[in-house]
Amino acid sequence: MIITLTTDFGLSDPFVGTMKGVILAIAPSASIVDITHDINSYDVMEGAFILDGAYRYFPEGTIHVVIVDPGVGSARRPIAMATQGHIFVAPDNGILSFVLDSDPRPTGTSAYHITNRSLFNSQISNTFHGRDIFAPVAAHLARGAPIDSVGPLIVDYKKKLVPKPRLIRPDTLLGTALRVDKFGNIITNIRPESLKGDFAIRVAGLEIRRRVSNYAEADQGEFFAIEGSSGYIELALNQGSAAERLNVGRGAEIEVETTGTNQ
Amino acid sequence: MIITLTTDFGLSDPFVGTMKGVILAIAPSASIVDITHDINSYDVMEGAFILDGAYRYFPEGTIHVVIVDPGVGSARRPIAMATQGHIFVAPDNGILSFVLDSDPRPTGTSAYHITNRSLFNSQISNTFHGRDIFAPVAAHLARGAPIDSVGPLIVDYKKKLVPKPRLIRPDTLLGTALRVDKFGNIITNIRPESLKGDFAIRVAGLEIRRRVSNYAEADQGEFFAIEGSSGYIELALNQGSAAERLNVGRGAEIEVETTGTNQ
Amino acid sequence: MIITLTTDFGLSDPFVGTMKGVILAIAPSASIVDITHDINSYDVMEGAFILDGAYRYFPEGTIHVVIVDPGVGSARRPIAMATQGHIFVAPDNGILSFVLDSDPRPTGTSAYHITNRSLFNSQISNTFHGRDIFAPVAAHLARGAPIDSVGPLIVDYKKKLVPKPRLIRPDTLLGTALRVDKFGNIITNIRPESLKGDFAIRVAGLEIRRRVSNYAEADQGEFFAIEGSSGYIELALNQGSAAERLNVGRGAEIEVETTGTNQ
Repeated sequence: MIITLTTDFGLSDPFVGTMKGVILAIAPSASIVDITHDINSYDVMEGAFILDGAYRYFPEGTIHVVIVDPGVGSARRPIAMATQGHIFVAPDNGILSFVLDSDPRPTGTSAYHITNRSLFNSQISNTFHGRDIFAPVAAHLARGAPIDSVGPLIVDYKKKLVPKPRLIRPDTLLGTALRVDKFGNIITNIRPESLKGDFAIRVAGLEIRRRVSNYAEADQGEFFAIEGSSGYIELALNQGSAAERLNVGRGAEIEVETTGTNQ
Repeated sequence: MIITLTTDFGLSDPFVGTMKGVILAIAPSASIVDITHDINSYDVMEGAFILDGAYRYFPEGTIHVVIVDPGVGSARRPIAMATQGHIFVAPDNGILSFVLDSDPRPTGTSAYHITNRSLFNSQISNTFHGRDIFAPVAAHLARGAPIDSVGPLIVDYKKKLVPKPRLIRPDTLLGTALRVDKFGNIITNIRPESLKGDFAIRVAGLEIRRRVSNYAEADQGEFFAIEGSSGYIELALNQGSAAERLNVGRGAEIEVETTGTNQ
Repeated sequence: MIITLTTDFGLSDPFVGTMKGVILAIAPSASIVDITHDINSYDVMEGAFILDGAYRYFPEGTIHVVIVDPGVGSARRPIAMATQGHIFVAPDNGILSFVLDSDPRPTGTSAYHITNRSLFNSQISNTFHGRDIFAPVAAHLARGAPIDSVGPLIVDYKKKLVPKPRLIRPDTLLGTALRVDKFGNIITNIRPESLKGDFAIRVAGLEIRRRVSNYAEADQGEFFAIEGSSGYIELALNQGSAAERLNVGRGAEIEVETTGTNQ
């Protein structure tokens, strides 16, 4: 059974290694895979977006532990959720919003408030539920504990609004930068379908009118739009960082005007 | 069998991957877990502290390879040590000091000088004993080689002084910052028992009088003390970096005055 | 079966985790090992050098996925190559040049153009062949698919020139810095055999005449030459960064004059 980990814990502290120790002590044959531990500290929606790009490539039934948890130790609930054919173990703070938003199956989602202390570590800190609650619960699920053994079914789990582009003029969408990746590509929330026909994308005072199908197609130093691997339009440079050159980060406004006749 | 790795090798060079290749060539079914590879270069005591926070969460019998090794290739000994129910493979430079200091079992510790070259790589460099000695020895132990097969028993292994708070006035302890974590929390060497009753913690010109039980309990921008996940008092800010705001790093002095009557 | 990963993808995005999901969905019992994901973006020859230092420590038959791929989505070919007893899955852009250069076995190398779409993901992006082509092909190979099932044999795979020192005067070699490691050691392309007898190494205005056999042998603040773990001469400082102190990076010129009589 596979358990994935997505957190804002970084790799310099022993947090992630410790969680793996807890998991392997309970479920010695679990395969543990890191998605990333470099989520910006406390940034729930960044974690939500990263998780959504990755989880669907794992086999159905994979258990995903997802922890960006500014409310650790407070009244926010730990939850386990079955949805989209996968299982998620996380704080109930909206970190599953992107997963829930994409391809919703209204009848396939069930969420449980994790309350069964017999699945926890024997000592529970108030600052590291990744180690003391989420890791051991995921390990017990990997060993075959049924999901409803973690605690009572709930329906009021938290779902935050996923940013969508909106029409601000008849021919113009206002979108946003969801993320900048390691290469400096700006991942927008615009879907490729929105770029049919001629278009002008405006971001940070620049206008981009070219769409290419692969990076190498573009000229050196030329900004362009491209369909990225997570299914959104990305703004990019061939072998350069678009985000750095434009001084654009997550949350930046992106205007898309479609002027073509063949849209 | 689980083998953990804790080093100052970083993740940009092929050092860690190469060690894993060596281990898997000898012990194909070993589970290898990274604790961290981000120990500050040559900082033996940082490695010692990180290891101590993590190892106890692994199952008994786990083999921990721990390498911060400024003396690599010199006369410093490689050792294998059984203690606290776990096995450690490391240079004999004090990196096991925190492990040995906590919960000592005088009769449960035995250390061996690693000298049995039949357990090493066929070629031994003078600069990378992680690859050529520590990894293959750990792999042979994981495959079932008895610990005393690595070489002769020794009793004069190196143990460095673990920094403890000391009483500088009848009501005042002088402690130190053991580490700053990824979130900017300052991990002190003060134990929660020392904060009974009213108290004033002084660090970098600031006085902290509040202790909370979870981060979210504190107000925005308020410094507070909290029992951290490794069992020490931490100085923190809710969703901010206390270390950055106070410009405090590892080794900083921390004074704890207990003034309360109910201590 | 072991699959290693060497990329310039970094660890902050979900790229690497996603590839692991794809691999485990096809080959659930594969052992996946990261060599590094910190190759400089688009730097094919850095990837080639890193790979060469690591792959030989894995068991024969290991499958190495190596992706630094500025031409992703363009006409550059994906290839699978059997050489040196290992299998490599990579873009055909020279990233296997160091592997091919060292210890060549003219009769042991065979390369195949990956064209068999039945081994790919069902949807192929133009920007992430790591996920859509390289990972699933490696997983199928790990499950036992024969290498010639990926596509036709080719002989015109790309091999870039590996930088070698050259004689610029009867007693003087001109070499180069292949890499700076995490500790600031400057890895040159000079082999230890070239330093027989007395020598003077000139780099960035400094002359180094001392060679030691381990770091601790040198005095504090003294620059020296040492045989590094990858079999090249390295320029180093004891517990300091030679590269930082000399302000020297990859590609820097390194002159080696041998003046001794006993060479």
